[in-house]
Amino acid sequence: MGKTTLKDVGDYVGVSAKTVSNVVNNTGWVGDELKERVHRAIVELGYRPNAAARQLRSGRSGMIALALPDLAQPYFAELASAVVRAAAARSITVLINQTNGDFEAERRIADGVGIPVMDGVILSALALTARDLTHREDSMPIVLLGEHIGESAFPHVAVDSAKAAEAATNHLLASGRRRIAAIGAQSDAPRETADLRLAGYRAALAGAGITPDPTLVAFVNEFQRADGVAAMKGLLANGADFDAVFAFNDLLALGAMHTLISRGIRVPEDVAVIGFDDIEEGRFATPPLTSISPDKDAIAHAALDLLLDAGKPDPTRTVAAQSLETTIPFQIAKRASA
Amino acid sequence: MGKTTLKDVGDYVGVSAKTVSNVVNNTGWVGDELKERVHRAIVELGYRPNAAARQLRSGRSGMIALALPDLAQPYFAELASAVVRAAAARSITVLINQTNGDFEAERRIADGVGIPVMDGVILSALALTARDLTHREDSMPIVLLGEHIGESAFPHVAVDSAKAAEAATNHLLASGRRRIAAIGAQSDAPRETADLRLAGYRAALAGAGITPDPTLVAFVNEFQRADGVAAMKGLLANGADFDAVFAFNDLLALGAMHTLISRGIRVPEDVAVIGFDDIEEGRFATPPLTSISPDKDAIAHAALDLLLDAGKPDPTRTVAAQSLETTIPFQIAKRASA
Repeated sequence: MGKTTLKDVGDYVGVSAKTVSNVVNNTGWVGDELKERVHRAIVELGYRPNAAARQLRSGRSGMIALALPDLAQPYFAELASAVVRAAAARSITVLINQTNGDFEAERRIADGVGIPVMDGVILSALALTARDLTHREDSMPIVLLGEHIGESAFPHVAVDSAKAAEAATNHLLASGRRRIAAIGAQSDAPRETADLRLAGYRAALAGAGITPDPTLVAFVNEFQRADGVAAMKGLLANGADFDAVFAFNDLLALGAMHTLISRGIRVPEDVAVIGFDDIEEGRFATPPLTSISPDKDAIAHAALDLLLDAGKPDPTRTVAAQSLETTIPFQIAKRASA
Repeated sequence: MGKTTLKDVGDYVGVSAKTVSNVVNNTGWVGDELKERVHRAIVELGYRPNAAARQLRSGRSGMIALALPDLAQPYFAELASAVVRAAAARSITVLINQTNGDFEAERRIADGVGIPVMDGVILSALALTARDLTHREDSMPIVLLGEHIGESAFPHVAVDSAKAAEAATNHLLASGRRRIAAIGAQSDAPRETADLRLAGYRAALAGAGITPDPTLVAFVNEFQRADGVAAMKGLLANGADFDAVFAFNDLLALGAMHTLISRGIRVPEDVAVIGFDDIEEGRFATPPLTSISPDKDAIAHAALDLLLDAGKPDPTRTVAAQSLETTIPFQIAKRASA
């Protein structure tokens, strides 16, 4: 059995191949009734439009690249999944690139090296700075995710990390906790995320008239479960006195909670724990983890909107670069841990 | 400042551009001492070889595609991360495609539609069958992951799911458990994985002289945490009597464990739980999850070896197709839950 062609569909319906083409490509004028007959015939005959030919006509490949630091981090895996679903609803295929936060890998993908068929790239950068992007003004559209490249000539989608961190800390304060530890401070660049969340934590304490206790701030190398374990062990070894923990992401929170429970410290009775990211893992943890929940689907849709509509640099906006930012809302997903 | 060229590097060292090119591309003969001077100059001048030009010379793009059903499943996210790391060690960039197990998405990626620059594709298929791949004998190299497409003319990397499931069940039997529930049976295709793990579970029971109790086998729609919760609630609601659970993946195990603990049933004292995949999440669960641990790095390296060396179909081997299979070893990661 040969491949079904436009002509086969036309013959079946009793119209020309050109009319079928008009229906498939949404060009020319075709009445609604005829359109429906053509669509039915397409389904019945199993006709599949030639993607490559359509691509030549539209000048678009229908593919975009999504570059992320690490898929083994559930936040990025869930975000990637959300972008793929949102793109599929627009018939766009996403090819995902894991950069490991490596400068050269991020630069290659931002420059589109080796990926000439892409309509654009969504990049969650760790190493690249705004300066590394200035040369690419005529390249394919790009949208940036997260807070690392805060100000540039390119559109940018992020949650207000400081505000969300303040809300997380206020949630602990509202339940009567006063000795709140923070897990996730960082001393090496890139550390924009950690710094913003630390600032939000401090702002909440200041708002409650509490002097921040530096011995309650735990530093980490990365935002992984094992770092949360190490940070909590460090706090306990130092004899730190705390009744709550704000961890800068859910993996840190889950690692910290794991250590608390294995030491016989009850969550939330002895120590309340709140995280950040609302990954699915936290919802099934024991106890289920309260967390800042950024709207990942909203991030996915906003990034796609920007990429497809306005992903090109706008030279008139370089001065007021922050106006290129799209801030995504968050909620507090309240569960048993805090 | 213009872009540094081969000639700039040559001028700096005092050799021809051709000699620098030989060092960059590892062609011709260049003495070690001169090689080192060229490499130093490359770093000092910030010369970056033109990837596109190198690609034209080598006939390779240095990029491969990896297609997986769902990155929000930690097993696939961790596997993708392992493939990216293994490929990076060979200077190969991986573009990842989430198919959602959709037939058309899997076929597009298997046919290389829209991705002309790829050197090959690693595909973990859910919907595609061996028959859907027969037409692509002259296409780019492909390597299949997992058990869904068991027999085809293409190389294939998988863990022996039945044998691993038997080992998991034997682990529970060895600790004296006799009423072992299985969570993860499936009634709809694609269900190769579920059927193989169910067969392994039954083989272990038979080996111990235990008649399998069908009321202890719980069916699921997907292999997600929520399916594990639903399956465990079903077992408990039916008054099933069991002292252990073999869940067909870790997410099912974590969902089941979540329900057991929230009902006050102790793990492992009342019910031992073992999973399959050894995702990082299980290691930090309460209690830490015992699991079948496939060697994900070995899967990544085997797939890359096959793709780059022998990823083309071998018509002489279509009869004995199973000899194209590479079976990856597994271990039991013993933790507190079983």
